[in-house]
Amino acid sequence: MGEFDLIERYFVRPTPRAVLGPGDDCALLALPPGQQLAVSCDLLLQGRHFLATVPPERLGHKALAVNLSDLAACGAQPLAFTLALSLPHADESFIAPLARGLLALADAHGIELVGGDTTAGPLSLCVTVLGQVPVGGALLRSGAQPGDLLWVSGSLGDARLALEVFRGRVALPAADFESVRLAMECPTPRVALGLSLRELATSAIDLSDGLLGDLGHILRRSRVGALLQHAALPHSATLAAQPPALRDECLLRGGDDYELLFTAPPARSEAVRAAAAAAGTPVTAIGTITAATGLVMVDAHGREQPLAARGYDHFA
Amino acid sequence: MGEFDLIERYFVRPTPRAVLGPGDDCALLALPPGQQLAVSCDLLLQGRHFLATVPPERLGHKALAVNLSDLAACGAQPLAFTLALSLPHADESFIAPLARGLLALADAHGIELVGGDTTAGPLSLCVTVLGQVPVGGALLRSGAQPGDLLWVSGSLGDARLALEVFRGRVALPAADFESVRLAMECPTPRVALGLSLRELATSAIDLSDGLLGDLGHILRRSRVGALLQHAALPHSATLAAQPPALRDECLLRGGDDYELLFTAPPARSEAVRAAAAAAGTPVTAIGTITAATGLVMVDAHGREQPLAARGYDHFA
Repeated sequence: MGEFDLIERYFVRPTPRAVLGPGDDCALLALPPGQQLAVSCDLLLQGRHFLATVPPERLGHKALAVNLSDLAACGAQPLAFTLALSLPHADESFIAPLARGLLALADAHGIELVGGDTTAGPLSLCVTVLGQVPVGGALLRSGAQPGDLLWVSGSLGDARLALEVFRGRVALPAADFESVRLAMECPTPRVALGLSLRELATSAIDLSDGLLGDLGHILRRSRVGALLQHAALPHSATLAAQPPALRDECLLRGGDDYELLFTAPPARSEAVRAAAAAAGTPVTAIGTITAATGLVMVDAHGREQPLAARGYDHFA
Repeated sequence: MGEFDLIERYFVRPTPRAVLGPGDDCALLALPPGQQLAVSCDLLLQGRHFLATVPPERLGHKALAVNLSDLAACGAQPLAFTLALSLPHADESFIAPLARGLLALADAHGIELVGGDTTAGPLSLCVTVLGQVPVGGALLRSGAQPGDLLWVSGSLGDARLALEVFRGRVALPAADFESVRLAMECPTPRVALGLSLRELATSAIDLSDGLLGDLGHILRRSRVGALLQHAALPHSATLAAQPPALRDECLLRGGDDYELLFTAPPARSEAVRAAAAAAGTPVTAIGTITAATGLVMVDAHGREQPLAARGYDHFA
């Protein structure tokens, strides 16, 4: 099967929302009046962002999910996306489920694949996602205020724990492994939560590089500090059962969580909880924004320890 | 040097046109009323789309140029772009000229890098470009009409000839090699020509996969055929000096030309020539669109030979 057949067969579908879908030099999209365009781009590379063991359907899901997560962090409504796909062989048994996973998530969010490129090469997926957000309405990293509560959605660290299992450093019972593996391979982008936080949160970011690193982005951009309550960090029973050093590594520096980290004034806490409930996404208050810069963690014994807010560095 | 430092140092610059540039979860862009968004995405992979011998400055240029060429083919005004970069090492001596070449072309078109991703991995560049075009004003592949003249910009086949030199199949004098190598490594996107053709052309495509293959896209989309005049195909003196079989392979199936192929009624020929002159881009009439489907080439002796309109297939 040739390249063009392959693309057409699995990836090209009707695109009623686009003015002009894939198959011309460009796709054309309309943006309603009063809306700004939100753009984000993520590259997933085998061996770096996913393992060869990932089922292709989950890989397709994840490539789009991590991009939708960026839109969620801006409070943007997903609109469309492009996909540049590099894969070693035009292998139908791989491409069909890959497309299925990708397009199922696209359908769930009512968005269309409007363009892309396919080439033979090492397996990688580059998605650029487009969204819309009312002019001036986007959630930014820069709006956190001293006194704000710091919130996080879902739970943290399971994706990293699964990675440690694949690395052979941890062994888990089969059911626990399946659960954390799902967190790693099939993250849920918090789009509905992001939209509902637009009027409530003062800042937001999605957690891709680990809690401390991504919190650091908010703190630097907002020129504030934070007091983080270690005991409040939401995590699974599986992660809770791990040795403390491993558990903390996963919780604080895990990466691949794709949860939303956001700040809001304490007076809006009930509204935040109501918005989260309406979005079907649990949220937890995990700390407070401080005027003093720097990141301090309050441990289980009430002791304060300063922390470095550093993320995962692909070249470190 | 870490990943974030690297990106910031070479790629992040002020983005006055964007509402919000790189450094948040998404970039935000405004689209003026009455405009549609044009989106295109191309992936360049070492060994497949460029050779290890390409100077990094030209590679940066080309990664953006091939995407701008897609906007040109739609008659869209470039607006912004994202870059996903995978590279083996955070090597400043490579990244600095790569960024310089990329951003110089961006500056020449008044557009900004608004987001992206960087990872360690095999060298590849994925650019998604955004442009704007008046509602209903885009050039499509589907509008060619019987009787239209078929035009092409610039000259054809030099990029492929350069590739054959790198492959060791052809030897050229140094000056000739430099000239065709520039065509391969440093193509000029025909943005100004595309904009000026918006009111004149009935269809357009950019030549990335070879004249016959890309012409085939126009013919299929427009449900027409074409009569191609072999003697009219514009090419360099260097290519003219090659053996006929090689010359024709480069001219007809070369790929990597990044010229515009377009159609327009004969009555607009003077206007087409004037638009091309204003854009500083030579154009040549190379054939006629026919009601009968299929592609026929008229050779140097006036003989008609049917041709298959096939492009380059990355998995063939």
